[in-house]
Amino acid sequence: MDVRRLGDELPRLVERMVGSYRADPRTHHIDKDYLPSREAITSLVDLLVELTYPGFFGRQGLTQHNISYHVGELLPKLWDQLVVQVEQCLCYERERCGSSEPARSCREKAILLSNDFLHKLAAIRDLLATDVQAAFDGDPAARSCEETILSYPGVLAITIHRYAHALHVMGVPMMPRIMSEHAHHLTGIDIHPGARIGRSFFIDHGSGVVIGETAEVGDNVKIYQGVTLGALSFPKDERGRVLRGRKRHPTVGNNVTIYANAIILGGDTTIGDGAIIGGSVFLTRSVQPGHRVTLTAPALEIRGPNEVSPFFGDYVI
Amino acid sequence: MDVRRLGDELPRLVERMVGSYRADPRTHHIDKDYLPSREAITSLVDLLVELTYPGFFGRQGLTQHNISYHVGELLPKLWDQLVVQVEQCLCYERERCGSSEPARSCREKAILLSNDFLHKLAAIRDLLATDVQAAFDGDPAARSCEETILSYPGVLAITIHRYAHALHVMGVPMMPRIMSEHAHHLTGIDIHPGARIGRSFFIDHGSGVVIGETAEVGDNVKIYQGVTLGALSFPKDERGRVLRGRKRHPTVGNNVTIYANAIILGGDTTIGDGAIIGGSVFLTRSVQPGHRVTLTAPALEIRGPNEVSPFFGDYVI
Amino acid sequence: MDVRRLGDELPRLVERMVGSYRADPRTHHIDKDYLPSREAITSLVDLLVELTYPGFFGRQGLTQHNISYHVGELLPKLWDQLVVQVEQCLCYERERCGSSEPARSCREKAILLSNDFLHKLAAIRDLLATDVQAAFDGDPAARSCEETILSYPGVLAITIHRYAHALHVMGVPMMPRIMSEHAHHLTGIDIHPGARIGRSFFIDHGSGVVIGETAEVGDNVKIYQGVTLGALSFPKDERGRVLRGRKRHPTVGNNVTIYANAIILGGDTTIGDGAIIGGSVFLTRSVQPGHRVTLTAPALEIRGPNEVSPFFGDYVI
Repeated sequence: MDVRRLGDELPRLVERMVGSYRADPRTHHIDKDYLPSREAITSLVDLLVELTYPGFFGRQGLTQHNISYHVGELLPKLWDQLVVQVEQCLCYERERCGSSEPARSCREKAILLSNDFLHKLAAIRDLLATDVQAAFDGDPAARSCEETILSYPGVLAITIHRYAHALHVMGVPMMPRIMSEHAHHLTGIDIHPGARIGRSFFIDHGSGVVIGETAEVGDNVKIYQGVTLGALSFPKDERGRVLRGRKRHPTVGNNVTIYANAIILGGDTTIGDGAIIGGSVFLTRSVQPGHRVTLTAPALEIRGPNEVSPFFGDYVI
Repeated sequence: MDVRRLGDELPRLVERMVGSYRADPRTHHIDKDYLPSREAITSLVDLLVELTYPGFFGRQGLTQHNISYHVGELLPKLWDQLVVQVEQCLCYERERCGSSEPARSCREKAILLSNDFLHKLAAIRDLLATDVQAAFDGDPAARSCEETILSYPGVLAITIHRYAHALHVMGVPMMPRIMSEHAHHLTGIDIHPGARIGRSFFIDHGSGVVIGETAEVGDNVKIYQGVTLGALSFPKDERGRVLRGRKRHPTVGNNVTIYANAIILGGDTTIGDGAIIGGSVFLTRSVQPGHRVTLTAPALEIRGPNEVSPFFGDYVI
Repeated sequence: MDVRRLGDELPRLVERMVGSYRADPRTHHIDKDYLPSREAITSLVDLLVELTYPGFFGRQGLTQHNISYHVGELLPKLWDQLVVQVEQCLCYERERCGSSEPARSCREKAILLSNDFLHKLAAIRDLLATDVQAAFDGDPAARSCEETILSYPGVLAITIHRYAHALHVMGVPMMPRIMSEHAHHLTGIDIHPGARIGRSFFIDHGSGVVIGETAEVGDNVKIYQGVTLGALSFPKDERGRVLRGRKRHPTVGNNVTIYANAIILGGDTTIGDGAIIGGSVFLTRSVQPGHRVTLTAPALEIRGPNEVSPFFGDYVI
């Protein structure tokens, strides 16, 4: 009887839903051929992480005798998934832009790009070793590099970022952003794949960190939870739409430390080498090399148990 | 031998654990009949998202020829899960309140509510299209509406919120909160299902955003990561318990932008139409329409490499 | 043909990848015998949560008649997984420190520690009941204790923390950190397993909360999203490496409330009983019992629609 109750109305419900799809092309992907799969890209990221830190995730018990076979099994698997998803992304972009390029060329290009990416893996991995070391060096609570690989969200986030950034630089559309959002979900750290980040980078704790598309970060930089390297309000065109493609996010030099919840904004804002930015600082200006910026101390008001605040009255937030 | 070592102690361990359950009714659900299932509600949310953005998640390759069959298959599946979980929630609430209403009436009511909800789907979906457009318009890094659907946590959070809010308004207990916490886990964005949010809403990045139960938000509002629309300290009754059910969270007008980490508190706090709230601002007062609120610039202290801070001494946070 | 294209290059790609592993011992776990498994520890945490709140997660329909069998089935399962992972952690640590202790003793020790841990379960569970009550008491939006167990990230985070802390105190390496990072991923709340936390602890919303390794927190403490109990800059040894093992994080008394995004830093910083720390406050000094600390009100600048800021000029962040 229950089923029948819906049954009566099912055709009308279906019709309204399909009508809603027809009315708005922005929110469905019907009668279109190409779209990357978030699930497939997520599993591709898993493979990359497994290849990067062999023995840590996925298969255990690797030895110098079996490691070549293991890698020789994972790499073609990765390549297969990569070719399919890169092709989807390229074809999607071609369709979106209304290009007349034949779909076959997406396949060719996807193969070339995937080969190219696989050739970059070892170099990216070497770079990631500097990040792992930076995590161990930067956190007194860390007991070993292994601990940072197994449990530091900052290490996972930079790992996924470096691969996403490589694909972004190679011009693969969509996929790098899906990878970076997967990292964001896993770690709370949101790094746009366009951001350029130097060696030995460490984000501690990490929840709430945002690093924008055109940010540039030097070597040996350490960032704490809640830090934003963001944009000021965007210039708009005559139709009121934000202009895309400008340098909108800060440039951070080498050996800089940025403490928790600091917000640094603007494409012209430069943080000089060796500078230190204190917790909760809000910055829209550049900082000279070696300088330290902190909140001024008297910005707080302290009251005894029976005093009433002149500003907040009875409220005690 | 290992197993035996525990075996010796197992009866005593079981007894102590069961004794701990018996001693405290708050933390177990034994000998009670009704409770919603978090897993079932999570899979129900997946179905809703798949129905909302056909072709993006789950089944690909949808066409105008097969779309009706696809929707006609998903809707009854959704309805089935909905009826079971809404019934559990209603019965749980009845049991909790010690109501004498018969359990059968929960089933009847669950069917009516589920039908009602299904009739609302298309309208909610149309509203979500305005949010997808707002995400594309609001972020210069976005390349297409598809990209925002596939990878923007703000879009996923408002999608789940609009459905959770509809169920909340219809009076379904528990389930809306479980849905919103699932969204919180997925996106870092915590919107209470009670919050009323207008059209074309966009949360960028999103980690750490909190929007409270009685918050009201107008149309075309844009919010960045770390923003809180929260409560001031709560009035308590004579037994020291917080009073529930009051307007405790801010009202935000149309066309308002609130930048990263701003905190706005209080049920009487109103942000007027077109106002702009700067990053890291802490507000417990109302803001007039069109006004802009920012941190005052001199709240920072900048020191050269060899200067010591009068406030922080040697420390460099 | 596609496969062949990679096929040509596969041996060279494998060789480079394996060469990258050989070149750096920090980022692989090849030819080493012991390492805990993150997956296994994650499933162990699931079991602990199921045992803690019977009827809420996993099996439903528990009664006073079947509960002993249910617990009698889960406990040995938990014990099995625990012994394996604790052994891996102990052996890993032994290998890392180059100890000459025989591997067999790790197994013995793992069994003793696992038994010990199981004996602590009921007492930890009793403590968690005070946290569940604190969540219900502390949030006017909560309708029941059940709701806080099913959907409050703060309840899940403290649940996992109390077990991770017990294992940390017992001297189990690695595993507590993997557990706490799993909780961080699930909830956005990052509590180091070393942190000592009193009864009736409640974190509301929670995204971005960080509580450091040597923090101490009293009874009846309430913390909101984005709060950090962190360290000041670390003293370093003569080789520039941070010194490990000192008290670096604050001490918080009983009945303290800390509002959203407040940052409290330093091992000598003490927050007295009954103190209230306002939202967005940045603190590196101690606070007397009963005192309230808030931001000073005039730190904001408010401008009308056509006024230009003397500090930020045309920018409107």
